[in-house]
Amino acid sequence: MYQLGIVRRHIQRAEREAVDRLAQFGSATVHEAMGRVGLMKPYMRPIYGGAHLAGTAVTVLLHPGDNWMMHVAAEQIREGDVVVAAVTADCTDGFFGDLLATSFRAQGALGLVIDAGVRDVKDLTAMGFPVWSKAISAKGTIKATLGSVNVSVVCAGAMVHPGDVIVADDDGVVVVPAALASQTADAAAAREANEAGKRARLAAGVLGLDMYQMRETLAKAGLKYID
Amino acid sequence: MYQLGIVRRHIQRAEREAVDRLAQFGSATVHEAMGRVGLMKPYMRPIYGGAHLAGTAVTVLLHPGDNWMMHVAAEQIREGDVVVAAVTADCTDGFFGDLLATSFRAQGALGLVIDAGVRDVKDLTAMGFPVWSKAISAKGTIKATLGSVNVSVVCAGAMVHPGDVIVADDDGVVVVPAALASQTADAAAAREANEAGKRARLAAGVLGLDMYQMRETLAKAGLKYID
Amino acid sequence: MYQLGIVRRHIQRAEREAVDRLAQFGSATVHEAMGRVGLMKPYMRPIYGGAHLAGTAVTVLLHPGDNWMMHVAAEQIREGDVVVAAVTADCTDGFFGDLLATSFRAQGALGLVIDAGVRDVKDLTAMGFPVWSKAISAKGTIKATLGSVNVSVVCAGAMVHPGDVIVADDDGVVVVPAALASQTADAAAAREANEAGKRARLAAGVLGLDMYQMRETLAKAGLKYID
Amino acid sequence: MYQLGIVRRHIQRAEREAVDRLAQFGSATVHEAMGRVGLMKPYMRPIYGGAHLAGTAVTVLLHPGDNWMMHVAAEQIREGDVVVAAVTADCTDGFFGDLLATSFRAQGALGLVIDAGVRDVKDLTAMGFPVWSKAISAKGTIKATLGSVNVSVVCAGAMVHPGDVIVADDDGVVVVPAALASQTADAAAAREANEAGKRARLAAGVLGLDMYQMRETLAKAGLKYID
Amino acid sequence: MYQLGIVRRHIQRAEREAVDRLAQFGSATVHEAMGRVGLMKPYMRPIYGGAHLAGTAVTVLLHPGDNWMMHVAAEQIREGDVVVAAVTADCTDGFFGDLLATSFRAQGALGLVIDAGVRDVKDLTAMGFPVWSKAISAKGTIKATLGSVNVSVVCAGAMVHPGDVIVADDDGVVVVPAALASQTADAAAAREANEAGKRARLAAGVLGLDMYQMRETLAKAGLKYID
Amino acid sequence: MYQLGIVRRHIQRAEREAVDRLAQFGSATVHEAMGRVGLMKPYMRPIYGGAHLAGTAVTVLLHPGDNWMMHVAAEQIREGDVVVAAVTADCTDGFFGDLLATSFRAQGALGLVIDAGVRDVKDLTAMGFPVWSKAISAKGTIKATLGSVNVSVVCAGAMVHPGDVIVADDDGVVVVPAALASQTADAAAAREANEAGKRARLAAGVLGLDMYQMRETLAKAGLKYID
Repeated sequence: MYQLGIVRRHIQRAEREAVDRLAQFGSATVHEAMGRVGLMKPYMRPIYGGAHLAGTAVTVLLHPGDNWMMHVAAEQIREGDVVVAAVTADCTDGFFGDLLATSFRAQGALGLVIDAGVRDVKDLTAMGFPVWSKAISAKGTIKATLGSVNVSVVCAGAMVHPGDVIVADDDGVVVVPAALASQTADAAAAREANEAGKRARLAAGVLGLDMYQMRETLAKAGLKYID
Repeated sequence: MYQLGIVRRHIQRAEREAVDRLAQFGSATVHEAMGRVGLMKPYMRPIYGGAHLAGTAVTVLLHPGDNWMMHVAAEQIREGDVVVAAVTADCTDGFFGDLLATSFRAQGALGLVIDAGVRDVKDLTAMGFPVWSKAISAKGTIKATLGSVNVSVVCAGAMVHPGDVIVADDDGVVVVPAALASQTADAAAAREANEAGKRARLAAGVLGLDMYQMRETLAKAGLKYID
Repeated sequence: MYQLGIVRRHIQRAEREAVDRLAQFGSATVHEAMGRVGLMKPYMRPIYGGAHLAGTAVTVLLHPGDNWMMHVAAEQIREGDVVVAAVTADCTDGFFGDLLATSFRAQGALGLVIDAGVRDVKDLTAMGFPVWSKAISAKGTIKATLGSVNVSVVCAGAMVHPGDVIVADDDGVVVVPAALASQTADAAAAREANEAGKRARLAAGVLGLDMYQMRETLAKAGLKYID
Repeated sequence: MYQLGIVRRHIQRAEREAVDRLAQFGSATVHEAMGRVGLMKPYMRPIYGGAHLAGTAVTVLLHPGDNWMMHVAAEQIREGDVVVAAVTADCTDGFFGDLLATSFRAQGALGLVIDAGVRDVKDLTAMGFPVWSKAISAKGTIKATLGSVNVSVVCAGAMVHPGDVIVADDDGVVVVPAALASQTADAAAAREANEAGKRARLAAGVLGLDMYQMRETLAKAGLKYID
Repeated sequence: MYQLGIVRRHIQRAEREAVDRLAQFGSATVHEAMGRVGLMKPYMRPIYGGAHLAGTAVTVLLHPGDNWMMHVAAEQIREGDVVVAAVTADCTDGFFGDLLATSFRAQGALGLVIDAGVRDVKDLTAMGFPVWSKAISAKGTIKATLGSVNVSVVCAGAMVHPGDVIVADDDGVVVVPAALASQTADAAAAREANEAGKRARLAAGVLGLDMYQMRETLAKAGLKYID
Repeated sequence: MYQLGIVRRHIQRAEREAVDRLAQFGSATVHEAMGRVGLMKPYMRPIYGGAHLAGTAVTVLLHPGDNWMMHVAAEQIREGDVVVAAVTADCTDGFFGDLLATSFRAQGALGLVIDAGVRDVKDLTAMGFPVWSKAISAKGTIKATLGSVNVSVVCAGAMVHPGDVIVADDDGVVVVPAALASQTADAAAAREANEAGKRARLAAGVLGLDMYQMRETLAKAGLKYID
């Protein structure tokens, strides 16, 4: 539930062991393992290519054009966290830059996911501090209105509860509820187990039609071949 | 949390008395009374002007292009409910038309809020069945994949729990958590109580600058008048 | 194929009888009858509510900001035609207003479908000349570059061949290939035949779950009811 | 130039006589008379159909989510003005509702043009107070940051200087610099003078190809007719 | 024409020699050589910079969220083909990843053009398998509904017939009808022949105004120089 | 004011010394130093990462699909200028490629800012000629309609007067009025002076809450910590 003016100090983070296992998989695999739910909208893009992280969510609820709560959030970060920032209305302002990144990293943050804009992207890239955002904007923000830290938020169309696992890479950002972290890691591992074999067969020219035995189903569905 | 393949039969609806009181206010007033949170994104528009409702949410989680769960939802509708439909990915297909509206109304629904498309808008308008949607589209849907009914969903950027109050009119759609319905109605009533007096003074030519005593604060903030 | 600088004088229009039968159905029904293909994108909206037409397409290919070919198209209009205007790049300029509408109507046109902007919408509304467009814009156009008339075009994501049937109403715009007009009208009629009966049953409170016998399939798919 | 924290009390409004003459023309005609410049982007739409105004601009520069300066602007309104509100970053919040409309009207305003959102649209429609906006949103705003009144602004892509003429109707919003008001009114009048004759000829079936003598130019440009 | 449930086995591919010649030119040059038609919308972007291909189109028509037909398409790929995937409604799901890329490449495909989303972009980049898409998304798809292979489709606003030539690079994607491949290659070659000379003169400081002899035409058009 | 068919030969460029000082700062710092005004919309993106420039604006007003005036503008470029191109309506065509870049560079231009599309991006990247644009598109343009050079324009939502300073980098494009260049450079320098110290303290783990002494203000605003 949205609540304003609140900071929750103690949150139930997903178990470290499950987070570490999830870190071995891409967002696409984890999203499949979740049953194809929990993905943020695809407008969320990394500021540089190749970043990949899995961490526990510290959430922030911001107002448009106001990044006051980012400083409040910094104090709640623990080693291995990812800050997830939501805004109460659409906004592309640059809420975050290299100073905040320096602070977040010093507190142990792995990265930031923000449903708004970010700036100083050249510095952030040089620092290797990954950010997934919906915009890049030089426009700064003020510090005037209270939001909240560690409440449940909606970020880029996905519900995020404090302590949930965030898996993010070049393909997007997926949210795994803390309680499902371990079983999702199991399911992801199972999915990947036989991918190597499949890849080798496909590379050798075997068709998916045959490997997945689709021909009969397709024929039953009415597929017609014409010469 | 998103869960697929689940129908919750018994939900805790907001108290009827609070819902009825909320029904007296517009979405703008209720949104202010909530502390300016809980509003769906402004792309959600009514299919015809002038509609206004307040009801309790029966939620549906759909997959793109698949409206199977709308039929499952119909059975869970009680008198005074509003169906709130979320989709697991962006989609503008027309998930809902006059047949479903006939069924929903027969079960007691006041209207529909859907983060996707709707069709048969001429018939729905003639029926007086209000729908707030992000698109109008003749494109129909299939019935192939399970979603859920009465789980928490994200609809147009807002978190909706089954039983929450939905207040919708020409200005948009706001969600009031069931537990806050009564106090929000109180706050809304307090807001409106002295609006009539203000309107009369403004109509008489009194300036907001004077009525709200803003001149001193503006001067302190540095406002300069130039001739 | 796009071809520039060409006007095809003789086109094969869909049979009048089939067009007249299609005119009895809404775009949603016709789209279903087509197998859910042939729909223009939902950003195409009528300039006023309640319009409904079915006619044969005279196509125009325009360049951004240039409506020269609209005058060339006027001469190719026959009674019962609908002009379908495509543009070689995204453009929202107002290519069409009340003067062209007067001319198009005098030649027998029922309306216009344009993947760009239109202006004089108050006059067009007063005339009852329906237009489906992606924008309304006061910005006029020049007459400098050749396009084509009666070539195959892509309009709002749909392929349109000269002579195809256009069915348009409040729900959108659907294209029926001339050769499929008659069988599509048959299929649309079949779809509507038993809708009245269904509507009555749903209005009486019968659930779609029972009327469409969905319960067993849903259970097999794994749907679980929770109390 | 953007300047913050400034209110200009005395502005040079376009001459009333020229404004009154411009009021006789639609935005499309005025835009043509201007040489096809000065039009706001077509995402600016009226909150209800049929409104039409011409007035002198009182400009306001706002910050996202903050409508403080609207109250400051109210005091600068004179009979026949139109308030033109720009925002320093994209924002769809509802900066304006029925209370402010009551105040603006009491001061003599004809309407509002705002590159952001508006709310209470049902009340505004009932009052007949026209607003052109880019969104409708129940989301209210705060009063915390200084902007300016009567400085030059960019509104929906168009430059507006205080005192310029705003002509707005169903087709959009056009800005006429105060110094060009009279000559633009002349040019608009000249454009309309012979439209009636053209309309009659087109209605009688004369083709634009012949009325505008386009056939030769088209042939020279290479247009080919195919049977 | 859109047709569902069909796979055309034998298509008329553009001649290899013409395709090879077209491969020497960028999409901008080819688009000019076509007379400025046949370009896909600019939202189509390569997943990594520097890719450049020319190949013959194998087309696929997909439904939103369903990539079943991609496997059917794989079997129809011949050496030097490019798969062009269209969808019946807007969708950003990730229809394609590294496994399908492995299979497509094994069959001889040079790359993919898809009016939807793609995933596993890090792997695809490592493989050097180029994709032009409108989105990147971790969201996977199901295999439930029949589309078609090797029918004419609309992809990102462009009509594509099986066997047409696709030229794609950092500037976009252009479609050359098979029958026009040779003459388009000639026209492209002619365009480029004298570009080197022009570039040298411009680099030496000669103005385009003089090199293209524009001064007189500009003066005739009324251009005025002010000091 | 928009004026068509005009080329202003002599413009008042910002002082070189101030421009050179501004060149030391990023767009975010300059934007803050301006009081958070003057930023172009964030859809303006560089065609390659890492570019950074500060130069004086030569402005061009173009019509959609027509780049004639770019050649006229070339003659007005002086060493250290940046060309700023605005268009009278939304357009994504590629108005600019490697030939024009060769010419602009030969005349002394540092780069281009264009509220439209650009092409030949691979060549431009190889040349190291930076462009900030809203699109990349292979679509070329014609040379038929007069615009203007060195008039005031609106580019991506920002007002630009000839001679203003343009500061552009990975974070966006900011416009500094010529008359404010020196004082803005001062303000930017002041902002950066103590950033190094702050960065070091934040890196050492000091919280912004303490460094900026926010705790008391937050408590007064009502922030509550919950365990």
